[in-house]
Amino acid sequence: MVDKKKHKVVFQLTSGDTLVHKAMVRQIGHLLEAAPNSKVEVVCHSAGLPFLVTNQTKQAEKIKELKNRGVEFYACENSMRDKNVKKSDLLPESGTVPSGIVEVVLKQEKGWSYIKAGF
Amino acid sequence: MVDKKKHKVVFQLTSGDTLVHKAMVRQIGHLLEAAPNSKVEVVCHSAGLPFLVTNQTKQAEKIKELKNRGVEFYACENSMRDKNVKKSDLLPESGTVPSGIVEVVLKQEKGWSYIKAGF
Amino acid sequence: MVDKKKHKVVFQLTSGDTLVHKAMVRQIGHLLEAAPNSKVEVVCHSAGLPFLVTNQTKQAEKIKELKNRGVEFYACENSMRDKNVKKSDLLPESGTVPSGIVEVVLKQEKGWSYIKAGF
Repeated sequence: MVDKKKHKVVFQLTSGDTLVHKAMVRQIGHLLEAAPNSKVEVVCHSAGLPFLVTNQTKQAEKIKELKNRGVEFYACENSMRDKNVKKSDLLPESGTVPSGIVEVVLKQEKGWSYIKAGF
Repeated sequence: MVDKKKHKVVFQLTSGDTLVHKAMVRQIGHLLEAAPNSKVEVVCHSAGLPFLVTNQTKQAEKIKELKNRGVEFYACENSMRDKNVKKSDLLPESGTVPSGIVEVVLKQEKGWSYIKAGF
Repeated sequence: MVDKKKHKVVFQLTSGDTLVHKAMVRQIGHLLEAAPNSKVEVVCHSAGLPFLVTNQTKQAEKIKELKNRGVEFYACENSMRDKNVKKSDLLPESGTVPSGIVEVVLKQEKGWSYIKAGF
């Protein structure tokens, strides 16, 4: 039974653990299967930034698939400066936000559900 | 001083760390002491599933106690499939939900507070 | 561009990992740069208690700075009992709350955004 509601969910990824990355991608897939109209955004900052860095992530293909299904991915510009990551180092599917933490707060203020990724 | 309000809190457990399990059980106990009318639900998925698996959990007794005080425990059916866990493998106190992540989102949409378990 | 809104954000710290402490302090700094009028509260319990213990934390100076910018820090009295930490063991910048978990729930009920610290 498919849930047609447009759930809005912001995932915060701050982990560099590739198993966390894999689990999160799987969870988003399950969410979109159950409720395909949902709006999902993934905010990556701190130790989670490599998830969106082309030569570091192991999830490039899954990210491309999810992006095609409407999921948005954002890297935090503060974290990029801290880690000396340039826009051109990110996957083409990744946008950026000035501050990852502010983005997660703004989404919650707009009524999005919050999921902290990680074990 | 006892808080009589019926707080509604959903805990998301995705960790397999038995110290996290122990800490979460203790936290729920503290919550129910401070506010005994609270409604608490624990959603276990991903690496957190073993918390509800009879021959894997170390918290069976505490889970029974908390269930008797009204706490609900749910295993994610997606995670059960991934890990080849059957309903009969779960503690008798455990229910199931089709998707752990969707359950956590639905609860937040209904105004429940969200606590991500783990360190 | 400065965001003048008074965002309200409760951070829950339950990790003893000093890298998590460092990352959280940095994130709060970034949040206050982007939105200086924000109200931020940090609730420390479980394994996160040492963050506020004078002879254990590595963030005393940063905590003092953030407190001067209006950030509130609270230790959980349940965790203090569990770990035999007295009020006099805490940083002077730290207040206490009867239950860390209840504090995080109460803040969410009042519309504060929730950030679970940690990787």
